[in-house]
Amino acid sequence: MEENSDVGVGHGVSQQLVEEVLGHAGANLSASLDRLFQFLRIPSISCDASYAPQCRDAASWIADELSGIGFAASVKSTIGNPIVVAHNKEANGPHVLFYGHYDVQPVEPVEAWSSDPFEPSLKEQPDGETHIVARGASDDKGQLLTFIEACRSWKAVTGRLPINVSMFFEGEEESGSPSMEGFLDENGGELAADVMLLCDTYLWRDTVPAITIMFRGILEEEIEISCASRDLHSGAYGNAARNPIQVLAELIASLRGANGEVAIEGFYANIQDLDEERRDDILKLDFDADAFLRSAGLFHSAGDSAYSVLEQIWTRPSCEINGIAGGYYGDGLKTIIPSSALAKISFRLVPGQDPESIQSRFRDHIRARTPADCKVNFTGLGGSPASVISSKSQYLSTARAALKQEWNCEPVLIGSGGSIPIVSMVKRRLGLESLPIGFARSDNRHHSPNEKYDLSSFHKGIRSWIRVLAELSRCATDRPPMLAGNNTGADQA
Amino acid sequence: MEENSDVGVGHGVSQQLVEEVLGHAGANLSASLDRLFQFLRIPSISCDASYAPQCRDAASWIADELSGIGFAASVKSTIGNPIVVAHNKEANGPHVLFYGHYDVQPVEPVEAWSSDPFEPSLKEQPDGETHIVARGASDDKGQLLTFIEACRSWKAVTGRLPINVSMFFEGEEESGSPSMEGFLDENGGELAADVMLLCDTYLWRDTVPAITIMFRGILEEEIEISCASRDLHSGAYGNAARNPIQVLAELIASLRGANGEVAIEGFYANIQDLDEERRDDILKLDFDADAFLRSAGLFHSAGDSAYSVLEQIWTRPSCEINGIAGGYYGDGLKTIIPSSALAKISFRLVPGQDPESIQSRFRDHIRARTPADCKVNFTGLGGSPASVISSKSQYLSTARAALKQEWNCEPVLIGSGGSIPIVSMVKRRLGLESLPIGFARSDNRHHSPNEKYDLSSFHKGIRSWIRVLAELSRCATDRPPMLAGNNTGADQA
Repeated sequence: MEENSDVGVGHGVSQQLVEEVLGHAGANLSASLDRLFQFLRIPSISCDASYAPQCRDAASWIADELSGIGFAASVKSTIGNPIVVAHNKEANGPHVLFYGHYDVQPVEPVEAWSSDPFEPSLKEQPDGETHIVARGASDDKGQLLTFIEACRSWKAVTGRLPINVSMFFEGEEESGSPSMEGFLDENGGELAADVMLLCDTYLWRDTVPAITIMFRGILEEEIEISCASRDLHSGAYGNAARNPIQVLAELIASLRGANGEVAIEGFYANIQDLDEERRDDILKLDFDADAFLRSAGLFHSAGDSAYSVLEQIWTRPSCEINGIAGGYYGDGLKTIIPSSALAKISFRLVPGQDPESIQSRFRDHIRARTPADCKVNFTGLGGSPASVISSKSQYLSTARAALKQEWNCEPVLIGSGGSIPIVSMVKRRLGLESLPIGFARSDNRHHSPNEKYDLSSFHKGIRSWIRVLAELSRCATDRPPMLAGNNTGADQA
Repeated sequence: MEENSDVGVGHGVSQQLVEEVLGHAGANLSASLDRLFQFLRIPSISCDASYAPQCRDAASWIADELSGIGFAASVKSTIGNPIVVAHNKEANGPHVLFYGHYDVQPVEPVEAWSSDPFEPSLKEQPDGETHIVARGASDDKGQLLTFIEACRSWKAVTGRLPINVSMFFEGEEESGSPSMEGFLDENGGELAADVMLLCDTYLWRDTVPAITIMFRGILEEEIEISCASRDLHSGAYGNAARNPIQVLAELIASLRGANGEVAIEGFYANIQDLDEERRDDILKLDFDADAFLRSAGLFHSAGDSAYSVLEQIWTRPSCEINGIAGGYYGDGLKTIIPSSALAKISFRLVPGQDPESIQSRFRDHIRARTPADCKVNFTGLGGSPASVISSKSQYLSTARAALKQEWNCEPVLIGSGGSIPIVSMVKRRLGLESLPIGFARSDNRHHSPNEKYDLSSFHKGIRSWIRVLAELSRCATDRPPMLAGNNTGADQA
């Protein structure tokens, strides 16, 4: 151990040392970019089983990189793609667990890409930015590498990290993480830490960083209404035979009230309302709701007018029909009364709403309104509760301070209308709170052709993590020295 | 001309002569069946342009057959498949125009057929029936040939027909008859007659013939609701963005009232109610509504309970959603708010309802209920008004008497919930009433795999037409002898 007073465990590091580490990262940015390019060239598409070997390659690539900078890294088999776990626990201070995913979305329609999605390229923009264009450039290979490269610079300059760091990387985030729950159950002890960091989120503005402290939960349902035993001729049976599309339409219409509220009995019953302070934080954000809607071709909020648009999408639960199909919908018209029709419905949930309980309230609502001669079949497609990161957390305030140093402005605490299931999974299974800090911009085209990551996001992301690691070393931990990581998360849950 | 008193024009023919003609048809049934097989082997699928040559082959085949029995037959070009027109006007009595179609539905799914759909086969059944199995066996090749073979037997026995007969056969009935209106406009004079016969309908029971005297009309509409300019993430926008599936569902729900009635303002305004006598005819038919519904897996009528099931499907207008699609409806769930959703809707109309006026009432209803941020796009897919054959018609009562002779029971006058557009087209353009007499059974699998026609339907059909032609010769006509057919239908319209 070559500890010195500059890297005093649990006591923070000197500003001078931080500047040295930042300087190293800047001087070696081109090597960091080379590594990102290597990583991006591996087509680790998880939803297509034929890319399983490439997913394994991506896992090995990360494990090798982490071993190369002194982590104890292993590639762990699962029922699906492997999960990489790595540890570097030489410090006595807080212990963070970093999460990321090495898998990517498919590239279709491939003809819409301006260059090969798996041959990354740098594209200079009129505004002076440089885009790194490739599948996964932002989601999540570019983002997760900001953290690894920050660790690399710490190691290069000081020989060690200022705090204890573990990492884990899954290869199924883009396909529903089927292996994750089982993996957490079996490996909870090894993943124990004080807080989880992740980098799968967005900046608030190009120049304003954000920590996402609220995620809505989700409940996904498929509902199928079946009536006649076969498609019927709409002339021969029209009026007399129950039409499942008509029934489904009436059921869907019954889910929302006139003001956009969800009309299922008890849907809002147990909601934990946002505290005043958090609501004020949201209302004072410089958010242009009109511009937000306009960018999607819309001019009016469809939600409950008692709430601002940001509240509607971050703090209020929703019910959206994601898809519907029944009968004949090709060219022209086929005069049938179809035998069945189906809809895909997802509810976004807020704290206090339990997915199981919302599921049974929804199903009861539908069953009570389903007329004679209709069978209704429900298929649950998954769910997870909402997550809120406590604004009292010392890690949150510390990370916020670190980001302020880098960005020269107050980082904002934001919500997300979407769900990152790993956040609630890790909370539930390992008792760990999360700190989601990301550097993606809203125009990064995640899941779309020509996905990009700004070179400045990559560099500022590495710098931000260098500072966050430094600041976190000032946090107190009540665990005995050198036993950090030995108490199991499972015990805490 | 070798007329004799037995074939006195306009005065009927002797019973003995009719028996001779019937005897000839029976003795030559196997030759008739051979011709039907030749006809069925031609894959004249009209909805697939690659079968246009086969459609032309089928047209030529009919024209050749008709020429062979002394008709002046021609194959007339149209913008699509040709129309065969043929005349045999050697008598002075009434002049009938027979209509049929030589095109057939596609055969998909071909693997569901127990034998090649274009290699007809005879399949003996446990109940003693023999099925002629092939695409078009019943709809409409087998049915139309009953009429041609009846004419053949008259010609063979007496050298002529008892009345004046013209025929026309189209090759686009199964694909919306795009050429028909133009053809009628241009050839109305040549198609003039006293009444149109057609054979595209059903028996009432296997042993009870029917004349279909009411057809509902139809109005076909497609409606598309568009909101955002692209599919949106349902987490990022859920609540705030208008969801076109939700909107479409609410619009569809608004089309029907609680008792199954159509809730469009003025929808029922101009309906011409059925007269008492006709309503009584329907109510006294031995129709088992429960069995009718049960055969489709249903147990309750969904229509207006003030009306019997037969009234609901024959005499009351309906509004059915034939198809709906929007968003993602494959496996699993995609968390989107789609940019658009569409539905196919067809209205069945009754006398007094004008398709154009119902279309504008429907569109007004939708527009008045479409919320902000939604564009609604309507596509009219066609329409035709309802048809009612006057129960006062001498041709109707005469044909009824002829059918009674053959079937030894009173033929029933029935309605059809479906539409045969040619009936209203010919009424509108040529001023001609129709007499739809068909011998199909409800289990003939029209449009489905393993379509069949009962050999007994084929034989009884030929016999029935032999008698109808004989009886019609008793009908008076107020046109001068030998000028029959020279007054144009267009003048009458």
